[in-house]
Amino acid sequence: METHDKVRHFQEELERLKERILAMGGLAEERVQAAVEALVSGERDRLAKVLRGDEPINQLHVEIDGLAFRLLALYQPMASDLRVIVAALKINTDLERVGDMAVNIAEAALRYLEHPPVKPLLDLPRMGAIAQAMLRDALDAFVRRDTALAQSVLDRDDTLDSLKTQIFRELLTYMLQSPPTIEGALDLILISRHLERIGDHATNIAEDIIFLVSAKDVRHTPPPAS
Amino acid sequence: METHDKVRHFQEELERLKERILAMGGLAEERVQAAVEALVSGERDRLAKVLRGDEPINQLHVEIDGLAFRLLALYQPMASDLRVIVAALKINTDLERVGDMAVNIAEAALRYLEHPPVKPLLDLPRMGAIAQAMLRDALDAFVRRDTALAQSVLDRDDTLDSLKTQIFRELLTYMLQSPPTIEGALDLILISRHLERIGDHATNIAEDIIFLVSAKDVRHTPPPAS
Repeated sequence: METHDKVRHFQEELERLKERILAMGGLAEERVQAAVEALVSGERDRLAKVLRGDEPINQLHVEIDGLAFRLLALYQPMASDLRVIVAALKINTDLERVGDMAVNIAEAALRYLEHPPVKPLLDLPRMGAIAQAMLRDALDAFVRRDTALAQSVLDRDDTLDSLKTQIFRELLTYMLQSPPTIEGALDLILISRHLERIGDHATNIAEDIIFLVSAKDVRHTPPPAS
Repeated sequence: METHDKVRHFQEELERLKERILAMGGLAEERVQAAVEALVSGERDRLAKVLRGDEPINQLHVEIDGLAFRLLALYQPMASDLRVIVAALKINTDLERVGDMAVNIAEAALRYLEHPPVKPLLDLPRMGAIAQAMLRDALDAFVRRDTALAQSVLDRDDTLDSLKTQIFRELLTYMLQSPPTIEGALDLILISRHLERIGDHATNIAEDIIFLVSAKDVRHTPPPAS
């Protein structure tokens, strides 16, 4: 009976860990979306809100680390559960950095809006949409242990990289041809790099999931000769 | 006797984990130093070597994750050892990203060297030296469980941020006054951002160490009401 209770508590806490990861992912995604939308629409207030609003993600970061650590310390989980918890620790770090990227985008966007617009913004929102979808799918893949979906996240990273390079070249042309665009174009280049990094974090998460699902059980391999 | 052997094996493997972390840190630091030095001296071959040389760090990344996972799975360590292993997993991620930053710096430096020099490079090597020292001290603090040293790493992050802002403003002035410097100045700005991120990774490591040494034993706190 006691063992049965322990298993049940463990499963409940593990579910809670996953649920908090998803909540954090949703929040991170929302903040990136808000930052990019507000850049395009020129909503300074909304950008200021993104800039100030990192606290809930930071709290989730601490909470999730605590939950994962508790699970490791209290239940000494077996290899497959252990992999979920280690993946959760890593995903937690990536999501916290995605939150930081939303802040960085909002900062650069606020600076950008101080200058005359450089060009209609079409490619940056496209980058933003791809990065967000990568993040969402990576987290879905985590919950569903779906390596095919995780692989599709990895595949999209190249698209994001090409867009970044294309945006860089285009903005460089603007800067060279019309020096008054320099400051604005520079901010747009930085924003494209932040979006690329969000894609990198989604890629990290997807890689963790492939390890999570497909890794050999480490306890079934002989210890190395020492 | 069996338990005694298990404890000894655990301690040996834990030492090995720390030793591999230090090896990886040393490698990451070396690569950042090489990239910055070769940028300043214009050594294209050396930059190309940094660009191609990420594999040993990537291998260490996989090896350290494997070691940490093995320790968790085989020995079900207690709270204080558990914290060391969780910290090692996190530090491992940060060091791998520092390796990526060395590649990014080398890429931008190779592009930079295609253009006439924008200015004598004094502040970037200064940023590089600070970031490297932060990284080195963060890893020393890990091995020695030295929270004061970890705190001093955190304190230096502001200096790095100010240097980055100062470099940005200065290069922006160059770009505005002399459009032929735009492309080169842009690469230098990107390099300063990569160096800032190395400082961020050192900061992450330092924060992990403060948690590692000072956190309450999670197993002594009552479980949350559910």
